[in-house]
Amino acid sequence: VNSEHQPWVVIMAGGVGSRFWPASRAARPKQLADLFGQGPMLRMTSDRLLPVAPIERQLVVTGEILREGVAAALPGLHAENILAEPVGRNTAAAVGWAALHIAERDPDAVLAVVPADQYIADIPAYQETSRRAVAAAREQDAIVTLGIPPTRPETGYGYIERAAEIGEGLFNVGAFREKPDRETALSYLADGGFLWNAGMFFMPASLAIRELERFEPELLEGLRSLFGPHARPPSEVYPTLKSISIDYAVMERTDRVRVIPGSFGWSDVGSWEALYDHRGDQDSFHAGDVIEIDGSGNVLSSEGGLVAVVGVSDLVVVHTPDATLVVPRADSQRVREVVDRLRADENEELL
Amino acid sequence: VNSEHQPWVVIMAGGVGSRFWPASRAARPKQLADLFGQGPMLRMTSDRLLPVAPIERQLVVTGEILREGVAAALPGLHAENILAEPVGRNTAAAVGWAALHIAERDPDAVLAVVPADQYIADIPAYQETSRRAVAAAREQDAIVTLGIPPTRPETGYGYIERAAEIGEGLFNVGAFREKPDRETALSYLADGGFLWNAGMFFMPASLAIRELERFEPELLEGLRSLFGPHARPPSEVYPTLKSISIDYAVMERTDRVRVIPGSFGWSDVGSWEALYDHRGDQDSFHAGDVIEIDGSGNVLSSEGGLVAVVGVSDLVVVHTPDATLVVPRADSQRVREVVDRLRADENEELL
Repeated sequence: VNSEHQPWVVIMAGGVGSRFWPASRAARPKQLADLFGQGPMLRMTSDRLLPVAPIERQLVVTGEILREGVAAALPGLHAENILAEPVGRNTAAAVGWAALHIAERDPDAVLAVVPADQYIADIPAYQETSRRAVAAAREQDAIVTLGIPPTRPETGYGYIERAAEIGEGLFNVGAFREKPDRETALSYLADGGFLWNAGMFFMPASLAIRELERFEPELLEGLRSLFGPHARPPSEVYPTLKSISIDYAVMERTDRVRVIPGSFGWSDVGSWEALYDHRGDQDSFHAGDVIEIDGSGNVLSSEGGLVAVVGVSDLVVVHTPDATLVVPRADSQRVREVVDRLRADENEELL
Repeated sequence: VNSEHQPWVVIMAGGVGSRFWPASRAARPKQLADLFGQGPMLRMTSDRLLPVAPIERQLVVTGEILREGVAAALPGLHAENILAEPVGRNTAAAVGWAALHIAERDPDAVLAVVPADQYIADIPAYQETSRRAVAAAREQDAIVTLGIPPTRPETGYGYIERAAEIGEGLFNVGAFREKPDRETALSYLADGGFLWNAGMFFMPASLAIRELERFEPELLEGLRSLFGPHARPPSEVYPTLKSISIDYAVMERTDRVRVIPGSFGWSDVGSWEALYDHRGDQDSFHAGDVIEIDGSGNVLSSEGGLVAVVGVSDLVVVHTPDATLVVPRADSQRVREVVDRLRADENEELL
């Protein structure tokens, strides 16, 4: 592979959240948790992009408090390739910072921006789609998003309406659509022209900078002050930045956005229950050391120990060395009630 | 209390077993496990007898591999008060060894022999009954057992049939009865003259020695060789000893046995399910750090961490730092299947 054609990968790893407690904690959110028993999701994300861009060309944008966790999850990552935000300012700032940082090192760089906490089943297909997206972004000086053909009337995702096909498997974008109600989601599914917005997009760094300058000039000006001989520290700059998503700031305003539909077993893994879809041919989902006797329909996850269940069904059981969670699979979002209780008890150790 | 009237407590802590996995392990059987969130059962046993006999007068008979665990559970116990058997040889050998050991230090000693792994709810009543048993054993030169008035037709315990009342609350023993079938257990319960054999008995050390000499002279001779100027080490003597219970060896043969009925909330806590009976006014049994939201009928136990359950009922959930168990409460004995699996996998670390 000619390195000129390699993109720079920007892994968005700033997320917080407690939907995967006790595997996820404040200092170890979902992207650093080992949900599949295959290492942290961040590492899974990095690893599957290594054939597209080597670790030297991978950057992680994350929160300052996650810096150590990120470094531990990706031991091969260069320290200067971690951009640690002192406070979260949504995705436009994160993408802008990464674009400026990379453009300084490689003005012709193409960025591949991906969330750290998604699951992809068909990795070769994903890598192939990514390469096509990189090439299209470079050739057309465009922002190329990946759109996932929906397999159910999902109301939890945004959608991308595709328009004219302008190249093989490359489409103009008609519109970005907010999370729909169920009726609308059903019509999107029937229509066939709507794709899930997976939050993965490819574009020249120069285009990202240009479009931010055009639509959010103050934000870009703030980010520029992080560079140069009179650079100000992020701790000073970041709190002043506008908090806006890259979707609102650029995607929904620019005329340079394209979409490539791609089916590669994508999932954003939004809850313990969602892991059940990744059980393969098994009756239950297993991650880590698990003994399951006479059970089915379970999501069983262990880290640093063993989960052993006998004669139970349709449960989520999660073991970590300092906490165990048990909740019916269909109610796995009720883990929030546990986290709320820990907060009320100011049990910082387990949060 | 005049120390002349204090007994010497002999705590029988040689038990093995896996009914309380993962809280119990090969190197930490039930008597060393913290089943109630109040410390190891051995310590609960020792503590509730402190007003009857101080720690200097408490001995623990246990297995060599449990010596460290016993010392850790009872930091105040003198090292010479741990009798560590190199191999298990049932209770007659254990009682005989303790009797000879104590008789050397105090020829007039009265022994209070108690299992390490029982639960007693009404501790003052138990202490009062024990004091009466000590006095009766001394005054009558007898073996005084405690008999628990049955509250259900239990088929898992042996029974003691009481005979004539020879003192206030003190009875001759008609017979020891093996674990009955259900029909027999029902008749025992209806009769009112049958008591559960709780394995607790009180007797002068000299009487214990005399009766062993009478009924099992070879066993006593072997045990005597552990003492004196030409003492042989337990590792040499113990494997040659006859393996027989104190019940078979002495209780069922001697004419010197008496029984004191005592109701003090006794339980031998034979399974995870049995802990449910100790839930008090709560809907579930809790030991250790537990968060239970919208649940009932559960047995929830944590050691070195938190058990958090939401919306589940009638389950056993046990957390230890390296293993979690989940099993329906009514099937809690199926924990054996997990232990069998660990054995088949030669997973020594978790056994």
